[in-house]
Amino acid sequence: MNRPIGIIDSGIGGLTVASEIMRQLPKEPIVYIGDSARCPYGPRPVEEVRAFTWQMIGRLLHEDVKMIVIACNTATAVVLEEARAQLDIPVVGVIRPGAISAIQVSENRHVAVIGTIGTIASNAYTMALHSIDENVTVESLACPLFVPLVEQGTIKGPEAEAIVRESLAPLQGAGFDTLILGCTHYPLLKPVIEACLPGVTVISSGEETAREVSSLLFYHSMNEQHQAKATHRFYTTGEANQFKQLAASWLNIHTDSVASIHLDGPLPVQATMKSK
Amino acid sequence: MNRPIGIIDSGIGGLTVASEIMRQLPKEPIVYIGDSARCPYGPRPVEEVRAFTWQMIGRLLHEDVKMIVIACNTATAVVLEEARAQLDIPVVGVIRPGAISAIQVSENRHVAVIGTIGTIASNAYTMALHSIDENVTVESLACPLFVPLVEQGTIKGPEAEAIVRESLAPLQGAGFDTLILGCTHYPLLKPVIEACLPGVTVISSGEETAREVSSLLFYHSMNEQHQAKATHRFYTTGEANQFKQLAASWLNIHTDSVASIHLDGPLPVQATMKSK
Repeated sequence: MNRPIGIIDSGIGGLTVASEIMRQLPKEPIVYIGDSARCPYGPRPVEEVRAFTWQMIGRLLHEDVKMIVIACNTATAVVLEEARAQLDIPVVGVIRPGAISAIQVSENRHVAVIGTIGTIASNAYTMALHSIDENVTVESLACPLFVPLVEQGTIKGPEAEAIVRESLAPLQGAGFDTLILGCTHYPLLKPVIEACLPGVTVISSGEETAREVSSLLFYHSMNEQHQAKATHRFYTTGEANQFKQLAASWLNIHTDSVASIHLDGPLPVQATMKSK
Repeated sequence: MNRPIGIIDSGIGGLTVASEIMRQLPKEPIVYIGDSARCPYGPRPVEEVRAFTWQMIGRLLHEDVKMIVIACNTATAVVLEEARAQLDIPVVGVIRPGAISAIQVSENRHVAVIGTIGTIASNAYTMALHSIDENVTVESLACPLFVPLVEQGTIKGPEAEAIVRESLAPLQGAGFDTLILGCTHYPLLKPVIEACLPGVTVISSGEETAREVSSLLFYHSMNEQHQAKATHRFYTTGEANQFKQLAASWLNIHTDSVASIHLDGPLPVQATMKSK
């Protein structure tokens, strides 16, 4: 079928999800759109997040994607349900897969979630966990310094360690056995976070989302049959060279094809309606 | 909605899948059918496996299940695709979830699979792994002594250790980092198997199947909304008391409701056709 999987994010954090999909589904071509020019989405009004996210979805539909992954916690919280209702291709978000995995992994039913202020305030992970099992104890903690830390490239060394240790201090001794990284930037700090929390299993939403994409692709028999190596396309509303450099240095993703695009206009509702 | 999840198996091995579903989805009621009277399915002709499996599916449809889990590798290999095509409820097998999880976990793309002679001969896991990534190296090994070992209750101690060590000897030094337990009986030997293979991540198909059930239930918004504790029903074509004792001693599943049933008659095709 050779149709790509579409991935959208407010910027480059979603590349952690893209790199996991490339690893877990090496035959699948990807189209990635990062809205770096308008990043971050967290502090924006809901209507703005909705409009921007639908602009990215509209663009993906023009690329004839077979599935859409909303690789941004904020956009998932705002748009996932309506996108599922309106589109006739599968749409996957980053919150539920992390929650399902935490339930699978946790032995003491005590889970912690870290994320941006917006994600933690939305309570989305707690609700997802409690929809599965209301007896799970959930600790939530916003770690507002982690995204800037990652964005400036400080993902290891004494400064990263000190900031991570201090940020996670409120969780010490709480008794959870599983921690969800509820932000797509955080997997880059995973080794530092794990070192701070011995005995705790750290779950990356991105990895788990890639796993869910894999399950759904095969369940719906939409997986790529070709044996050829997949080629990927990357679009950013920001600066293409910067995107390329970050993708290479962060995640060893070598993006031959990065184009700078402009997203605007009204909501492309007609293009996104279900055909049936 | 309060409709149960249906689970079928050639006998009691599928209880490892049931217990994981109960753990990962504590709100979901389960109906389990084990065809112990005609177990094992492995050596039977394909047409017999097909007929027996469809009899169990027919019985589950009378129980108004919302999803069917074929918790038996042999039955999955024979019936999964046709059941998906003919039923209008989701049908999940035990092979694909184990393969997807192995791809997620393996770092060196070198995976081993152990199972019954029938499952290994069917090549089903190798095909599932290669459909995801043809570059994965796969070792396959039949371990015909493991099911009898588990059935006689020898799941730890010197005898179990010796048989497991000897059975797995052909895999020593092969270089894989991930092992799939491709038989629903094997999770009961997991600690012994892990001790034989230091540094190897051991994946239980049952756990991973429960995870896929969870993903699909929430993806299709079919999850139980009630907060009440789920009640489960168990049917066996064998002896109800024996089933009850094994469920309790193996898996700490206390089955208040176990009934002995008889399955026969023609394929209940009418009852299983898609309504749309």
